[in-house]
Amino acid sequence: MDKINIIDKYSLFEDHWNPRVIGELNGQHVKIAKVKDEFIWHSHELEDELFLVWKGTLIMEFRDKTVEIAPGEMLIVPRGVEHRPQTNGEEVWIMMLEPTTTVNTGAVDNERTRKELESI
Amino acid sequence: MDKINIIDKYSLFEDHWNPRVIGELNGQHVKIAKVKDEFIWHSHELEDELFLVWKGTLIMEFRDKTVEIAPGEMLIVPRGVEHRPQTNGEEVWIMMLEPTTTVNTGAVDNERTRKELESI
Repeated sequence: MDKINIIDKYSLFEDHWNPRVIGELNGQHVKIAKVKDEFIWHSHELEDELFLVWKGTLIMEFRDKTVEIAPGEMLIVPRGVEHRPQTNGEEVWIMMLEPTTTVNTGAVDNERTRKELESI
Repeated sequence: MDKINIIDKYSLFEDHWNPRVIGELNGQHVKIAKVKDEFIWHSHELEDELFLVWKGTLIMEFRDKTVEIAPGEMLIVPRGVEHRPQTNGEEVWIMMLEPTTTVNTGAVDNERTRKELESI
């Protein structure tokens, strides 16, 4: 029951698209990540996913539209919906909330998949 | 799948200790509230509760310690743990994440209880 300074946590790592866990409640993980450039198209069969931006602009591409998420804004991606997060060349700091079972690349398993997440 | 500007949502209401729902995912509600002065001692038997502060300082009193949560900081209160949120006379803007079943006053049912929450 200690408080967590979210922004401070970003100083603990530098790599991109590699989420860290900063909290857990009710079977959900609170994760943060630094992201830059394009991720892959994927969806999560059973998990809704919340994205909240702390720094920069996250560009969330859907098959039928694109949404730009700025600091202080959030977006919930419902389960089953294909999405591709990306940035316009800048490093963006995001926070995610999703079930502890969620794998970052959804049903895709490739070199960007991270199954064993570090808690910081 | 529209983005949500969290700060803008606070302009939609003025009362204190009356949470509004701004999002839902995986059986959890994302709620926001304006709070001021003391709430009541309570606990939630089955629900962990996340508090994140956007403006001001939230003072979370536990039976054995007190934690001050500033903007950009968060705190997870595990189920079963008695807590009393309060502020030092200022209005504080908080965001909460908790199961949709969570009642703000936990096992206590009094004039501060809010069971039918407005979505904004």
